[in-house]
Amino acid sequence: MTHDRYALVSRAALIAALDLVLGLFLCLSAGSARADAGTLASSDHLWLVWIGIAGILVFFMQAGFALLESGLARAKNTVNVLMKNFCDTATSTLGFWLVGYGLMFGANPSGWLGTSNFAMQSQDGMQMMNLFYQVMFAATASTIMSGAVAERMRFAAYLIGATVTTLLIYPVYGSWVWNSQGWLAQLGFIDASGSAVVHCVGGWTALGAVLALGPRTGRFSRKGEVRDIPGHNLPMAALGAFVLWFGWMGFNGGSASRDFSDLAKILMNTNLGACAGIVGALGSMYLMRTPILMTRTLNGALGGLVAITAGCKTMDPWQAATAGAIGGLLVAWGEMMLERFRIDDAVGAIPVHGVCGFWGVIAAGLFYADGPFDAERVMVQLIGAFAALLWALPLSYLTFRVIRATVGLRVSTQDEQRGLDYAEHYEVGYAEFTSAQLNDGKQS
Amino acid sequence: MTHDRYALVSRAALIAALDLVLGLFLCLSAGSARADAGTLASSDHLWLVWIGIAGILVFFMQAGFALLESGLARAKNTVNVLMKNFCDTATSTLGFWLVGYGLMFGANPSGWLGTSNFAMQSQDGMQMMNLFYQVMFAATASTIMSGAVAERMRFAAYLIGATVTTLLIYPVYGSWVWNSQGWLAQLGFIDASGSAVVHCVGGWTALGAVLALGPRTGRFSRKGEVRDIPGHNLPMAALGAFVLWFGWMGFNGGSASRDFSDLAKILMNTNLGACAGIVGALGSMYLMRTPILMTRTLNGALGGLVAITAGCKTMDPWQAATAGAIGGLLVAWGEMMLERFRIDDAVGAIPVHGVCGFWGVIAAGLFYADGPFDAERVMVQLIGAFAALLWALPLSYLTFRVIRATVGLRVSTQDEQRGLDYAEHYEVGYAEFTSAQLNDGKQS
Amino acid sequence: MTHDRYALVSRAALIAALDLVLGLFLCLSAGSARADAGTLASSDHLWLVWIGIAGILVFFMQAGFALLESGLARAKNTVNVLMKNFCDTATSTLGFWLVGYGLMFGANPSGWLGTSNFAMQSQDGMQMMNLFYQVMFAATASTIMSGAVAERMRFAAYLIGATVTTLLIYPVYGSWVWNSQGWLAQLGFIDASGSAVVHCVGGWTALGAVLALGPRTGRFSRKGEVRDIPGHNLPMAALGAFVLWFGWMGFNGGSASRDFSDLAKILMNTNLGACAGIVGALGSMYLMRTPILMTRTLNGALGGLVAITAGCKTMDPWQAATAGAIGGLLVAWGEMMLERFRIDDAVGAIPVHGVCGFWGVIAAGLFYADGPFDAERVMVQLIGAFAALLWALPLSYLTFRVIRATVGLRVSTQDEQRGLDYAEHYEVGYAEFTSAQLNDGKQS
Repeated sequence: MTHDRYALVSRAALIAALDLVLGLFLCLSAGSARADAGTLASSDHLWLVWIGIAGILVFFMQAGFALLESGLARAKNTVNVLMKNFCDTATSTLGFWLVGYGLMFGANPSGWLGTSNFAMQSQDGMQMMNLFYQVMFAATASTIMSGAVAERMRFAAYLIGATVTTLLIYPVYGSWVWNSQGWLAQLGFIDASGSAVVHCVGGWTALGAVLALGPRTGRFSRKGEVRDIPGHNLPMAALGAFVLWFGWMGFNGGSASRDFSDLAKILMNTNLGACAGIVGALGSMYLMRTPILMTRTLNGALGGLVAITAGCKTMDPWQAATAGAIGGLLVAWGEMMLERFRIDDAVGAIPVHGVCGFWGVIAAGLFYADGPFDAERVMVQLIGAFAALLWALPLSYLTFRVIRATVGLRVSTQDEQRGLDYAEHYEVGYAEFTSAQLNDGKQS
Repeated sequence: MTHDRYALVSRAALIAALDLVLGLFLCLSAGSARADAGTLASSDHLWLVWIGIAGILVFFMQAGFALLESGLARAKNTVNVLMKNFCDTATSTLGFWLVGYGLMFGANPSGWLGTSNFAMQSQDGMQMMNLFYQVMFAATASTIMSGAVAERMRFAAYLIGATVTTLLIYPVYGSWVWNSQGWLAQLGFIDASGSAVVHCVGGWTALGAVLALGPRTGRFSRKGEVRDIPGHNLPMAALGAFVLWFGWMGFNGGSASRDFSDLAKILMNTNLGACAGIVGALGSMYLMRTPILMTRTLNGALGGLVAITAGCKTMDPWQAATAGAIGGLLVAWGEMMLERFRIDDAVGAIPVHGVCGFWGVIAAGLFYADGPFDAERVMVQLIGAFAALLWALPLSYLTFRVIRATVGLRVSTQDEQRGLDYAEHYEVGYAEFTSAQLNDGKQS
Repeated sequence: MTHDRYALVSRAALIAALDLVLGLFLCLSAGSARADAGTLASSDHLWLVWIGIAGILVFFMQAGFALLESGLARAKNTVNVLMKNFCDTATSTLGFWLVGYGLMFGANPSGWLGTSNFAMQSQDGMQMMNLFYQVMFAATASTIMSGAVAERMRFAAYLIGATVTTLLIYPVYGSWVWNSQGWLAQLGFIDASGSAVVHCVGGWTALGAVLALGPRTGRFSRKGEVRDIPGHNLPMAALGAFVLWFGWMGFNGGSASRDFSDLAKILMNTNLGACAGIVGALGSMYLMRTPILMTRTLNGALGGLVAITAGCKTMDPWQAATAGAIGGLLVAWGEMMLERFRIDDAVGAIPVHGVCGFWGVIAAGLFYADGPFDAERVMVQLIGAFAALLWALPLSYLTFRVIRATVGLRVSTQDEQRGLDYAEHYEVGYAEFTSAQLNDGKQS
């Protein structure tokens, strides 16, 4: 047993180490990626500073995810959730720098895949800043899944899956939209800050992973009953939501135009999206006559944020408020749907990022400043939204089925009941606090 | 009983929903608020970026308040405290955007009230940025009360009170000071970042609410004994103080002049204010021969920050250090006074924001860079400080008396003893940790 | 006993109060430090904004240290750890403003010590911004020690030690490197953001303190066995590491050149350093066949950050990744060495800041953009690295020996077992949670 666990963690360490070795090799050999420094115009300086700050704010969202997800998990899995979030920052950064960025932003004559700028060593400050900023987006996209699969996936399996997201699923879809040569970009697809590129891809990857993985033991009984598994530290979850909201200002703010004339509108829309998402979630719980839960309210704010991310630059404030409120409603509806289909998403990542991301893409087409309704624009948005679903969901499902068939995807039921911290990490979150152990349905 | 609780939360949801509906209606009809885009000068770009960042930092203070207040409350009320802070961000943003901003910054010929710019949809980037920044200040002002009334006020009653603050109490006083046509502005009243506008108004609103609400059960015995009710998570409270300090850099920094020549002085003064507040609080505890408590030290830092907020732009560093140190002393004195008059402020918000805000306004008149003592300047400051007290305190008291007489202000004693999380939210902060239930004076 | 404790805290309060009084006196008398305002060029505005933001980010690292260190300590010492971090921000700010800044950046004809600009009241915005930024670095340097000495040092003794660091140990070494007239600066010593100035000085000061203080009771048995003492709140520790990483973007980013052409490279290098540090730590645990611990992974990221801090401006990305990975390895090696020599560092501050700082200084000489290996450059780096060790370690050891001989350095064994919160602060971190009291080796 012990040997088996060592084998597991060693695989994880190996993956990470390989990333690095590969990187050094590529860097030293890939002279082509070492561009000369461009000349900076005076107006570029402010741009560099702002995108740098926006990227720093997006980085901090990693902490927000770690807090939200570990707060909503049980105490016995705290270290596992944190370790996933902490280590996938490393694998995302290294993997996206080495491979993903080139696939996403490299020369893309086919419109389906970038082919240059791997392991970039550019001395061009502007290009380098884009790399820094985009690395943070890649880290966000790959970490979205971590909450959904919490409390039963092996640590090594997770790191492999997150790495596949960073190296393949995320950058390929991204090259269709954010690479100016991408086929969706050419169609005029609107996704300013990534409702589709980041959140749909993250959410549908999570759905694929959860389908391959199965629900937590005890979540759904054989008789069809649904059992809620409460989070162990709701203040931590609330702080996580606040941190995500805070970081989202940079996530959307980085899409401002070069003269910053729309920066205020973007920030205002972002804030209104979150606030209306809260109102939408409160309203949905009122209409569905369920208790007014804080956990759902937090997810409502996040759903509102996801819903205005695609159109943060083109919506008017009242449109952002409307889109956000509908996002908040959809979170509650999505959580209900998941339960009906007996799909277990431990933190609600699929409704927040997948469903609201889908809605956000449509909303960006429906709500386009003062413009009248434009059926063609909405059609393009629908194509892009379905493209994300049809690309990310099957590929993710396939990836995790392959992982299941090879290195193993899920911890044993015994380890799940003891908690992943004990089984996989040899450390516990709260060494001194006695815990009212929650039952996993079978035994304590 | 259950029915009654549903009625309560449904009222809360309704309020929030009404906010939104009202907003959409106003927006769609109020064509007048849809100004054309101004032309941005090159020097405006940096201004937009800085005010955007400052607003983002002020937003993060919402998380700081949530952490500080929930850490200082008991575990059984954690979710309630967090929900109040999370949801009042939504009501403040929506309410201030729709109504408050117009009252505060609209055309103000009388000097007593603004009358335009409701539900602003402006395409002018500079005006929009001011809206974004000011929304965050409104959120701060309305959330100050939440800590003082913690652990016994109904959730719906709180949201109504916070909404009244955002829609009426805060913006009307604000229009006197920060609207260039306001009567206090015309007198030359100094309040750079809001010792009066935000902190006095917030602190005296809290005092009015607490007077209408009464102390927590068991806080003061019939024999006149005072019982301390310790916070359940002091690390969370300490993090909250750090986050507030961090966000305050934007709170004060946004008052920098357009050439940023005084930005460094403002940031330095802000930091010195907090540090001297710590020293003042430590010193006061030494002089009063009480134990050196961390909770009071945290409040000392915040009191120091409040004390230099009005004069952050016009004080020299040694003056900021002096004002902050006195602020730290006043926190301890204020907490003593509250106990003497048997007023129960669960987190010390009234001394920190009300008392130190009052002092900060005076200090801005006394300490004016190199200038000599100017009796007239100090007199104007006194008028403004008393205006805040005489406006916010009675109006808040009245508001909460009306709430008490209609929807109900306070939870039942039984619900107070069980905790508001169980009684009002159906979720608990720490589902797995056994808690050494603290006695409420009567029974467990 | 009670009397004795009062004496202790009163000493602490006195020190802080003296700082302030001294400051006011110096300010009012030192007219020489009141420079006239310089004229700001248009390109200075952006610089002021960026350095202001960078300083705000560095300030937030204080919160990161507080979280990391208190999470890694036992619950019974939480308040003590937090109070140390909160109060040393005050003593550092006041002490460095009054004295340290002048020693470090004042006129320095000898190359060994600055002699002007004490208690600066300058109206020059650029100079003032440098003061604000440098104050935050001084606070970082002096707080590094606090984690290493946790759980057994008297609160007053700590504050005295931290003040000596701020007033003497840190600024004098700093004047050699960052004062353009300093002797190491004249040699061409490379330390862009302070692997030596901040981290080596902080780490070796911690080592001196720990040597004078001795290990925690029960950490090393008489038979030579080493007992791990697990932290009480690992989510808090993980959040602390994220916050430090976040703040480090400003810590290194403030070294960008005035046209910001290298800002992106610096941010990218910073992020790669942390990520590679994680990979290095994971790899080291794999190679040493120890469990994959989260606590060591967190320290690996921090070690990677320290390792690229000196060369963040001059390294290429692949060099930063290499330096960071080695930093992660060195953290694990350093922790092993400390255990071998029975030195008790409660949080691993000495390996992270001392050892990785040393390596970071060397790395900045080895990895210098495209430049070939330059033995002279590496020699200068070695001289600077040893200068930090030979200056900070003996001086710190001496300081704490003097404190031990006078006011007393260590709490009694009984107080250590009861916890410093109870013994020194009259407040506990978690008033309501029952704690599975960890044994101190002798008795509960």
